[in-house]
Amino acid sequence: LRVQLAPGAPDFPQTQPPAAPIRVLQFGLGPIGLEVARLLAQQKRFKLVGAVDIDPQKRGVDVAKLLGERREMGVRVVESLDQLPLAAQPQVAIHATGSHLSVIAPQIEALVSRGLHVISSCEELLFPKLQHPELAQKLDALAKQHHVAVLGTGVNPGFVMDTLALCATAVCRDVKSVAVFRVVDASTRRLPLQKKIGAGLTAAEFRKLARQKKIGHVGLRESVALIADALRWQLSDIRERLRPILAAKKVRTRHLAVKKGGVAGIHQRAFGIVRGKKVISLDLKMYVGARAPLDEIRVNGDPNYILRAPLGTPGDAATVAMLVNAVPLVLAAPSGLLTVKDLPVPRFSQ
Amino acid sequence: LRVQLAPGAPDFPQTQPPAAPIRVLQFGLGPIGLEVARLLAQQKRFKLVGAVDIDPQKRGVDVAKLLGERREMGVRVVESLDQLPLAAQPQVAIHATGSHLSVIAPQIEALVSRGLHVISSCEELLFPKLQHPELAQKLDALAKQHHVAVLGTGVNPGFVMDTLALCATAVCRDVKSVAVFRVVDASTRRLPLQKKIGAGLTAAEFRKLARQKKIGHVGLRESVALIADALRWQLSDIRERLRPILAAKKVRTRHLAVKKGGVAGIHQRAFGIVRGKKVISLDLKMYVGARAPLDEIRVNGDPNYILRAPLGTPGDAATVAMLVNAVPLVLAAPSGLLTVKDLPVPRFSQ
Repeated sequence: LRVQLAPGAPDFPQTQPPAAPIRVLQFGLGPIGLEVARLLAQQKRFKLVGAVDIDPQKRGVDVAKLLGERREMGVRVVESLDQLPLAAQPQVAIHATGSHLSVIAPQIEALVSRGLHVISSCEELLFPKLQHPELAQKLDALAKQHHVAVLGTGVNPGFVMDTLALCATAVCRDVKSVAVFRVVDASTRRLPLQKKIGAGLTAAEFRKLARQKKIGHVGLRESVALIADALRWQLSDIRERLRPILAAKKVRTRHLAVKKGGVAGIHQRAFGIVRGKKVISLDLKMYVGARAPLDEIRVNGDPNYILRAPLGTPGDAATVAMLVNAVPLVLAAPSGLLTVKDLPVPRFSQ
Repeated sequence: LRVQLAPGAPDFPQTQPPAAPIRVLQFGLGPIGLEVARLLAQQKRFKLVGAVDIDPQKRGVDVAKLLGERREMGVRVVESLDQLPLAAQPQVAIHATGSHLSVIAPQIEALVSRGLHVISSCEELLFPKLQHPELAQKLDALAKQHHVAVLGTGVNPGFVMDTLALCATAVCRDVKSVAVFRVVDASTRRLPLQKKIGAGLTAAEFRKLARQKKIGHVGLRESVALIADALRWQLSDIRERLRPILAAKKVRTRHLAVKKGGVAGIHQRAFGIVRGKKVISLDLKMYVGARAPLDEIRVNGDPNYILRAPLGTPGDAATVAMLVNAVPLVLAAPSGLLTVKDLPVPRFSQ
């Protein structure tokens, strides 16, 4: 980038002062949740007022300590919502505990029942109707009853393979198909992600876990469904393919090592099908040692249109940003179970 | 693009049938308005029900004839709104007559007063508060009174140098500055655009018209203001620079010829300033004979982020698409004078 400003320049650019900071609860303090807490503590527009995690090691610990900071924040981790101090009074929860809606739905319900808006990194929440139509209906009704909004978002799903792809279709007079290609270097990502892509396994171990659906990226079919829904396309099927990418040479990350020939990660594809044709095609390569991270959207239409993030979209940082940046948009949104396509154009929010 | 489908394949992909087509009035039948009418007539989701233009040559002529089509549409051009057939009953007007709000505001008011939503290509309407705060307030009140929404959009302003730039900031935890670079080959554009960039003038003629503010792209400062507003940045100033790009060799377009050394087009820049620093920087080169059309957004932040349209974004086609694609979003929006940052993520809409 040509423009290089001092990263620590105070108060730069000058922003409108917030009327009162938005009071946020962090639910789940894994790698993503902790980074969300760090960002919330930094931004004047937000105030971290509570933190919930079931890990006994974290219970009672000040969040600042978990972040490796010396000065305490005055926010201690509690094990359950019932143990939140009365004075916390959060308006919105950022939820980051799991990928599968059937597992985490009771957590969302508990938050909503306390009158909190919820923004979640749960991948299936990007488009919950797809795999859990009844649960989605129930959550929608509950959210409306409590006058709050619930949103699933992140970088993927949530941005590069769905929201941005939709955005790219806006300049077209006709769209025949949408394809997205994403290459992620998983070396720089959190340990849970390196595990979920099978890095370090043998090809045989990978195939076994794949058959058991215990491995791979969650949310690709949700991105397909979201795009189709927004474009009003009636898909006859969503198909998914998963295969291991094997390491061409030894790779070592901060968390683990992959031998030559061992599994470096995944090549996962999802297709939205109409009359046997792939009208939506999402292609995700996520592996340790990927040399050229890239995101590319190709719209086949009138006109054809290509959008590219030539350096890729840094996964963990971007997911944290997407969650926090969604807060003001969700607070201003109508109540109910929302998706990113219902909200205004996403944007940085400080 | 790898995926190439037959462009004329009927009904592909299969879409949800519209409950009833949205009834649209086209106001202004210049090059953009005519292409909007063509698209509206093609898409099942819309029905072109009326067309207004002051050109005496067009009065009473069926729109299909103006489009060079043999089969009549049954929609004849009228000179003013008062002459619209009673049966037309439009819900929304697409307005494409001029760039300056003070000139076209009475047209918008007339449409709104008849209970029509309005989507306009008027560049200053992208962010009308900037140059016409009182007029903007008046239009907002009038739109609310009539329970309709008014929106200014297009490709630029409206997409590449503002909406898409905002979108790019969503993956950032911090943003120090936003820069957008756009290079447009004006050879392929409509005659009014080639004239507004001064193609074919001498450098002296260009400078004279530039001093009189009769030449150049309208809307760049509106894009700066929109980005700043959405990011809640308080700008101390918006500065703009305009200089001619001279032809390195003779160029001939469908509409005009440029001699070597004559004006091929514009290099126009607009800056959003905070404390003397350029925090928003929009750089537009629009000239006949530009070899490498390109759009590039660079966000300087945490992380840095680059988004690129490596083939550019085709101007006239994309503006037509943006106007028509906004229709369903505007119909579902709250009433008042809106901007693109208030609406859901833009998307193709058929």
